Amino acid sequence: MTTTATDAQPAAEHPLDPIWRPRATAIVGVSSRQSGNRGGGFLQSIMEQGYHERHGLYPVNPKMTEINGLKVYPSVLDCPDPVDHVISQVPAPVVPQLVEECIQKGVRSIHFFTAGFSETGDPERAALERQVLAKAKAAGIRVIGPNCMGLYVPGVGLAFMGNFPKEPGNVFLLSQSGANAGDIVGGLGRRGVRFSKVVSYGNGADLDAQDFFDYAAWDPQTEVVTAYIEGVKNGRAVFEAMKRCAAVKPTIVLKGGLSAAGARAASSHTGSLAGSVDVFEAACRQAGAIRAENMDELHDLVVAMTTRLRTVRGRGVALVGGGGGFAVLSADAIAQNGLDTPPLPEATQEKLREFIPVAGTSVRNPVDTNVMGGPDGRRRMRDTLTIVGQAEPIDTLLATVGGWDDWRDDSASADGAGSGDADPALQGSSGSRVERAREAAGDLGALQGLVAKPFVAVQRDRTGGDRDASRAFLDEAYFQGVAVFSTVHRASRTIGRILDWRARRAGLPEIF
Amino acid sequence: MTTTATDAQPAAEHPLDPIWRPRATAIVGVSSRQSGNRGGGFLQSIMEQGYHERHGLYPVNPKMTEINGLKVYPSVLDCPDPVDHVISQVPAPVVPQLVEECIQKGVRSIHFFTAGFSETGDPERAALERQVLAKAKAAGIRVIGPNCMGLYVPGVGLAFMGNFPKEPGNVFLLSQSGANAGDIVGGLGRRGVRFSKVVSYGNGADLDAQDFFDYAAWDPQTEVVTAYIEGVKNGRAVFEAMKRCAAVKPTIVLKGGLSAAGARAASSHTGSLAGSVDVFEAACRQAGAIRAENMDELHDLVVAMTTRLRTVRGRGVALVGGGGGFAVLSADAIAQNGLDTPPLPEATQEKLREFIPVAGTSVRNPVDTNVMGGPDGRRRMRDTLTIVGQAEPIDTLLATVGGWDDWRDDSASADGAGSGDADPALQGSSGSRVERAREAAGDLGALQGLVAKPFVAVQRDRTGGDRDASRAFLDEAYFQGVAVFSTVHRASRTIGRILDWRARRAGLPEIF
Repeated sequence: MTTTATDAQPAAEHPLDPIWRPRATAIVGVSSRQSGNRGGGFLQSIMEQGYHERHGLYPVNPKMTEINGLKVYPSVLDCPDPVDHVISQVPAPVVPQLVEECIQKGVRSIHFFTAGFSETGDPERAALERQVLAKAKAAGIRVIGPNCMGLYVPGVGLAFMGNFPKEPGNVFLLSQSGANAGDIVGGLGRRGVRFSKVVSYGNGADLDAQDFFDYAAWDPQTEVVTAYIEGVKNGRAVFEAMKRCAAVKPTIVLKGGLSAAGARAASSHTGSLAGSVDVFEAACRQAGAIRAENMDELHDLVVAMTTRLRTVRGRGVALVGGGGGFAVLSADAIAQNGLDTPPLPEATQEKLREFIPVAGTSVRNPVDTNVMGGPDGRRRMRDTLTIVGQAEPIDTLLATVGGWDDWRDDSASADGAGSGDADPALQGSSGSRVERAREAAGDLGALQGLVAKPFVAVQRDRTGGDRDASRAFLDEAYFQGVAVFSTVHRASRTIGRILDWRARRAGLPEIF
Repeated sequence: MTTTATDAQPAAEHPLDPIWRPRATAIVGVSSRQSGNRGGGFLQSIMEQGYHERHGLYPVNPKMTEINGLKVYPSVLDCPDPVDHVISQVPAPVVPQLVEECIQKGVRSIHFFTAGFSETGDPERAALERQVLAKAKAAGIRVIGPNCMGLYVPGVGLAFMGNFPKEPGNVFLLSQSGANAGDIVGGLGRRGVRFSKVVSYGNGADLDAQDFFDYAAWDPQTEVVTAYIEGVKNGRAVFEAMKRCAAVKPTIVLKGGLSAAGARAASSHTGSLAGSVDVFEAACRQAGAIRAENMDELHDLVVAMTTRLRTVRGRGVALVGGGGGFAVLSADAIAQNGLDTPPLPEATQEKLREFIPVAGTSVRNPVDTNVMGGPDGRRRMRDTLTIVGQAEPIDTLLATVGGWDDWRDDSASADGAGSGDADPALQGSSGSRVERAREAAGDLGALQGLVAKPFVAVQRDRTGGDRDASRAFLDEAYFQGVAVFSTVHRASRTIGRILDWRARRAGLPEIF
């Protein structure tokens, strides 16, 4: 589900579009000490993405001549033409001169990693910020920041931290905090999500939340939008832009600083004034956006909105697998989140009983089949999922996975039917655990297409697990459009949030 | 903190005490197909613990002569004397004959893994359960189950699943569900917790929740008690036993089947009738126990109650580390859970400013020091933690850890002071990541002792992480009595629950 939207390609170019694809980029203030994730690693992170193989990449530092095999230029003016984008790592007092040179050079955008402006609370430093901004604005240069990490555009090769995925995706992220942007890219990346564009914009002195919402709504590479916001300078403008964005794309917003203590922290972080939970919640509701209550929820909602789960239409959940006590707690968790686990219709139960033994199983819902252990287990699990998924009161099928020793297809094995010998060293008996995990993910993906309802996997890691198999399952499942969660509670809560969101959008056009 | 209580050794023996240390155990109905975690793996799990090296272990099956190098006996009567404990894996219809033989043999306890009794809802099968029970009872045999996994006693060598820790600990677990017991032992095991005794008791036809609470309250090896309960047959008896237990040891109870859907699932699982949330919550409050709302919370509360965190006395939290946006969201999460992040006193801030640079840091609270990267980082982090921990309004110090490249001690490195070069390949520069992780855990443990307040670690895994270093940190931290959580939210929620619990116990004697 990391494909790019190709329909509804906008006719006119968006004024911010060139910013995300600079023909050449200069990094001003590089030093040999700028590595790791501490903010100075721009050169390294961008080279890791291979930007310099396709575009001009110009380190600038009058005291150096070479870094990482690249020529270092004394100033922006000494770089080859053109320089579209400049990353500033120089101290605040040197910034006015840098802006002067950027104007002369015809630069389109400057990203100020440089901190020490308005967020310090110092009036002189705030004045410097305003002055720099006015100068850039007059010359038509757009500013990102100051006090931020700037751009991650995997399709182009820009990045602000190491180990970011190189493949582009369909999610746009705007974040005032660079560290939180890194957490979102990293955490969601491990769940299979990829990004069209990411911007960490700090103080937002020029380009601010409203500009990025506006661009994300337009951007043809973006299907889902998510945001981490600490403070809002122009509330009305942000609200209107968020509303325009949410009208056409699922828009998930996490607001930091909604508590008094959080607001105090936000004030010294990005110089932001924070609002109340109620006001922000109301704004999101009116705009048709979803407010994530915390970082985990933001992650879960983005996963849901980029898989078939976004199409969920009702509150009926079938739970398949997991064992007795797990089923009891899961049914409780599903109910706590406002969803149902309706008993399956008699006809469905009868169909399941044709191949599921009576002892130690349940075919009501939660469904505990115990069918995977024996020969022909994979076929029987597929039959189970199909029959349960097709049942009328079921809107989402929630399958628990893990313990890949069980998920195997013995149908073709030599010792054939009836053996059912659960050898603990199954690895290799009919494919490795990794292969079985990938097969299971493929089955879930194919079957949710067949029954045209979202399938969701809850990946349990009961014994510490086989990390490679878990990884393989997760990657393949997401690729197949199957949302994977760590707990039934998080899966249920996410489903409930999506249903509430759609109910609130009654007046708005359906996005899915 | 996995030490065994040696003080307050009870004078008289508890009537259930012999059950946990059988001199010999027979497993009736073994077969060559009983492996893996599907319930039949008792023999394997017990041998993995080494029980047979110290005690008699007698597999019983008339059709076999040897298994895993052990002699197989045709019946219980053919086993050497004595046989104290019998694990029954035979089908329900054969059980009456087995009980007859156990009576003749002088067996003390029978654990019926065997299902197919009252939990099926079939009156004939319920009658069989009553009949078997009456017979055993008349002969003085105690019954565990039926329909359960029985005993895990690491000190003795009994276990019902593979890969359970061999070391005994200080936590007693009673669980109706075997699978949930396995999840608790496994999940808490990975967080460092070890168990004195665990019992999965299924239908609880003879020995039931009240008996196990009563024993746990007495057991000198048990310091903390936790329970997973689906249904209660004798509410008054369970309440009274839970109350006696909670009066002397922290008692954490998770009730399954509190929703209508969960109750339906519980009924087919252990034949239990479930009650309402409100009734159960009120019972726990009156008894002085803590109700865990879900499995994650049970885990978190057990970790808290077996570390110094259990002594937490107030709502003031200091957060150290994590970066700007993370600090904002963390302050929000702490506030949402009813705790405070009070600004540090001026004097404390001044002490910190003596060695923490102004740019890009904060010493108010949350404290973002940025001190770990350079030389002498470990000493400066220790100073930071000490100064913050000693501040008057702080009751708990919450340190975020992870990214072990930063947690290093450069003070002894060759290129000495002022280099501060954050080489990404730090491994080996001054100890491996694993060593640095272990050092950090040791520092937290030592410093919380020094300032006599609980230190808590939130282990962030931002980049996929170094699994070995994470593991090393977690193990050492728990050993040092430092509670480790995966998120600030879970840490804060747990602290809030402990404070509420202590406030409710106003009339009861203080346990800590």
